[in-house]
Amino acid sequence: MLIIGERINTSRKSIAPAVVARDEAFIAEEARRQLEAGATYIDVNCGTLVEEEPKFLEWLVQTVQAATGDAPCSIDSPNPVALERALKVHHGQPIINSITAEKERFSAILPLVRDFKTRVIALTMNDEGMPESAEERCAIGSGLITELTKVGIPLEDIFLDPMVRPVSTGDHYGQIVFQTIGKMTQEYPGLHTVCGLSNISYGLPARKIVNHTFLVMAMLSGLDSAILDPTDKRLTSLVHASELLLGKDEYAMNYITAFREGRLDI
Amino acid sequence: MLIIGERINTSRKSIAPAVVARDEAFIAEEARRQLEAGATYIDVNCGTLVEEEPKFLEWLVQTVQAATGDAPCSIDSPNPVALERALKVHHGQPIINSITAEKERFSAILPLVRDFKTRVIALTMNDEGMPESAEERCAIGSGLITELTKVGIPLEDIFLDPMVRPVSTGDHYGQIVFQTIGKMTQEYPGLHTVCGLSNISYGLPARKIVNHTFLVMAMLSGLDSAILDPTDKRLTSLVHASELLLGKDEYAMNYITAFREGRLDI
Repeated sequence: MLIIGERINTSRKSIAPAVVARDEAFIAEEARRQLEAGATYIDVNCGTLVEEEPKFLEWLVQTVQAATGDAPCSIDSPNPVALERALKVHHGQPIINSITAEKERFSAILPLVRDFKTRVIALTMNDEGMPESAEERCAIGSGLITELTKVGIPLEDIFLDPMVRPVSTGDHYGQIVFQTIGKMTQEYPGLHTVCGLSNISYGLPARKIVNHTFLVMAMLSGLDSAILDPTDKRLTSLVHASELLLGKDEYAMNYITAFREGRLDI
Repeated sequence: MLIIGERINTSRKSIAPAVVARDEAFIAEEARRQLEAGATYIDVNCGTLVEEEPKFLEWLVQTVQAATGDAPCSIDSPNPVALERALKVHHGQPIINSITAEKERFSAILPLVRDFKTRVIALTMNDEGMPESAEERCAIGSGLITELTKVGIPLEDIFLDPMVRPVSTGDHYGQIVFQTIGKMTQEYPGLHTVCGLSNISYGLPARKIVNHTFLVMAMLSGLDSAILDPTDKRLTSLVHASELLLGKDEYAMNYITAFREGRLDI
């Protein structure tokens, strides 16, 4: 399971003031904690700062990479100007989070993916919005894969995100995600799939239980990456157990090691 | 989700002495707690008492039903003599746990299912043992369904158990269960599927995490019943969230009610 650590996002209360104050120590600690807890990529998002997003996104990339020995970032913005500025200072191969099939966004972000040779999260939405059915999401996903691979982006660098809507607003929204992931991973071996967890439980009480259950089901459906909080020990315990049950943990070595190192929430 | 409460089993340390001492109050409390926690059936198993199993199984059925206003039992024994004695005192429709495709066991237990009009758990094993592949398990399951329905047992009274082997002894044993459940529920609409949870984690540390994850994955695969400890709040929280994500909880009413009543492990 490839984990993209989601904690450095200015929509979180503690993060916004730290970014505005350029509190390096605070951001560095958030980055290191996530890396130690198992994140491969550190997501950086300062979209709430609007006008100042480009300069703060650049600063976040520099600060996170300085703190982590150049751990790769998931550069999280729909704004091509902010993305480009952050990409210019990034060391190694980042993920751009994200591209969509919306015409304007696609044509603005595609050159960045291609020229900076990044990986990319591709959301299954287009100018008509987020479709209702799994079939339509797969169709948008296939279109994005075709266009991205056509300009030389390897399939292995594409992370398809089926998009998650709250199950409180439609009781089929869980299953649509599982079906989209299942179909796309079967059809495109080598393609990565990714999603965030928190949308699914929007509007419900005890949200973490729903998020956790959702992740386990998504993993059985084929999900191989997720944007989540790696410091949530109960959640990462379920990730370890899921990998074991999916036959991805030979002799249960990772599970047993996680137990011995006190990383399981028993 | 139909829950069969597993706690009244003499292989558990506290249960054996209570049964031998005919401690009605203790067994009654175990039965009531499970019912209140959401069990539909109360499993009774005193197999460790060997020679005295028939009389104690009869006593357990009487004691559990007296304590619960005749909640139905899952009468858990491979011994037809013990089963018959317990069936004779049972009120309502119990489940016999279990029949297999082993010739001798099948022909000894089939008449009890038929004559007492019980429901039945059917294990996918035959005289050659427990097969390795999902295909072979499905073949045994299909054979059992054919034989059982041939004598008039409704498909809706059959609970197919794909049998669970420890993932520590073969890293494909989780997936075999998920595949068997998926294929059989697709092929036989109306068939119930059931399994126990604890075998999957045998030999591992932090077993509950594996059991919990396994149940969520099995539910996505189509499992609609399970033999488990309904007083394990973290486990039943995942069951509630799973039903929600599978579209079986309209307007999230059950989930929200469970939250309001303090039944979720938040």
